[in-house]
Amino acid sequence: MTKDYVVGIDIGGQSVKMGVIDRRGNFLAHFRFDMAKYGKDDTELFLDDISKYIRELCDKVGIDNVQGVGIGAPDGNYYDGTIVDAVNLPWAKGKIVPLRDYISNKVGLPVTVTNDANAAAIGEMTYGNAIGMKNFIEITLGTGVGSGIVVDGRLVYGADGFAGELGHTTAVRYNGRKCGCGKTGCLETYASSGGVCQTAREMLETSDMPSTLREQNEITSKDVFDAAVKGDKLAISVFEYTGRILGQKFADFVAFSAPEAIIVFGGVANAGDLLLEPLKRSMEENLVHLWKGKVKVLRSGLPESDAAILGAGALAW
Amino acid sequence: MTKDYVVGIDIGGQSVKMGVIDRRGNFLAHFRFDMAKYGKDDTELFLDDISKYIRELCDKVGIDNVQGVGIGAPDGNYYDGTIVDAVNLPWAKGKIVPLRDYISNKVGLPVTVTNDANAAAIGEMTYGNAIGMKNFIEITLGTGVGSGIVVDGRLVYGADGFAGELGHTTAVRYNGRKCGCGKTGCLETYASSGGVCQTAREMLETSDMPSTLREQNEITSKDVFDAAVKGDKLAISVFEYTGRILGQKFADFVAFSAPEAIIVFGGVANAGDLLLEPLKRSMEENLVHLWKGKVKVLRSGLPESDAAILGAGALAW
Repeated sequence: MTKDYVVGIDIGGQSVKMGVIDRRGNFLAHFRFDMAKYGKDDTELFLDDISKYIRELCDKVGIDNVQGVGIGAPDGNYYDGTIVDAVNLPWAKGKIVPLRDYISNKVGLPVTVTNDANAAAIGEMTYGNAIGMKNFIEITLGTGVGSGIVVDGRLVYGADGFAGELGHTTAVRYNGRKCGCGKTGCLETYASSGGVCQTAREMLETSDMPSTLREQNEITSKDVFDAAVKGDKLAISVFEYTGRILGQKFADFVAFSAPEAIIVFGGVANAGDLLLEPLKRSMEENLVHLWKGKVKVLRSGLPESDAAILGAGALAW
Repeated sequence: MTKDYVVGIDIGGQSVKMGVIDRRGNFLAHFRFDMAKYGKDDTELFLDDISKYIRELCDKVGIDNVQGVGIGAPDGNYYDGTIVDAVNLPWAKGKIVPLRDYISNKVGLPVTVTNDANAAAIGEMTYGNAIGMKNFIEITLGTGVGSGIVVDGRLVYGADGFAGELGHTTAVRYNGRKCGCGKTGCLETYASSGGVCQTAREMLETSDMPSTLREQNEITSKDVFDAAVKGDKLAISVFEYTGRILGQKFADFVAFSAPEAIIVFGGVANAGDLLLEPLKRSMEENLVHLWKGKVKVLRSGLPESDAAILGAGALAW
């Protein structure tokens, strides 16, 4: 007999967000905790803590009413339920962390794991802007750049469960930025929130353009966005540059799986048309003629804080 | 009641190859005709000729014993059976050619159409080096560069039936070569037989390296191969350059669908290790660490002239 609730969990670079969800996607309870305290030696501490928080959430509806736990995590593997060398998570860098089995043992519920971007894609097709779409790509633009690729209504996992690492395809071949993954020129180094900040810093250094960003010591991608909204030309140029690079890569992604739409999600996507207008122009310029004017670029239809939780939860049914 | 034979057809830039095939992949009859005579106004002539040749082939086993016709063609669309603006076929450039319906009416048999590279992929998984593989990518390196992407045992067709145009992803971003598709820097302009020749011509012009290729007026990719086999350093450099570009792109393709193997097929792939050794080195350098040392690069296990015919035929069962 299936039960009435699932727990959905979104493990991100900065925090873990979780919720108890019913069949219609309503949240019965939310919980969030910070990642900062978990260093490279705290893998077990993290696993124990998250297990404890899951139990506490389950207690809100009674654990006997919970069907299972779905987790979206960077470098999460659907096939074996591990996290493998997640460079943005100190406690999971250079390691294989048996997320599914450890938590399942501690909590006493079935656990399913996938990539955080795959979870967002599942959320999008269940509750967001990809309802009814059989072929689309979800691109998450946050601390990292991830992707969930849906072909014929199903997520692409590939031979090993790690398909869809589009943030680590090469965007800039010569003099590309050094990526946390060890390569250079990865899309992530330009289109993540850190990439946007680096572009801003580089533009501030190499131009004399006046900018309110010059008054700040530390620049966040939110600062760049706020400045751009107020008409700061340098900040606007940062998103034009980011959009141009994303558009070039999106054209390549279209040539791969011919999606109906590419859906962008996450902090950097909140820049909206400041990012999407140059992105779409650049994608159109780089598309094979077959697809010109035919592939939509959309923002996620889900509230940012809930998309990956909803998607992860949907995995658990 | 299913019948004992199918007709498989491979429409290429230079010739059309066709055969009557039984369930085990044995050929009962072969036929080949040349493309050179069909210009831009000869679409109907081509369709009438191919229909006539199909009938003649069917007569060898009796048309009542033929299940159907499968056709692999550049820019062939599985969903609606058309060829859409195939730049390497003068009679199909800038047009939508209703291949399936026209031939089916003329011949009186069901006809199925797909991309020629998809047909090669189906041939590979049925009779070649991808038997038992659920996730692989077939890359055809011939007059054009095509691809058939298999995910979870099924070909990726995408929203419109045209997925897998990896020859038109961008390999070289700045000062890239002009492609027949209208874009610049497409992989096809470097890794097709014409691309290999252009690389040879450019190297001959820009270097003083001695080479037997300097004695020739017209250079074919076969000439470059023959020279390389004999130790001609410039010719060897041509394949190193081609392999390096292919390897960079293969690393991106792996990040997309995490295949078990990428299988290369076609004229340029016949260069064997002259191409594959630099290709594999370059791919490994560009792979995300997750996949380093884990993804095979293989040559097709099918005789070049038969792979696409066998694959196309398999479509017709």
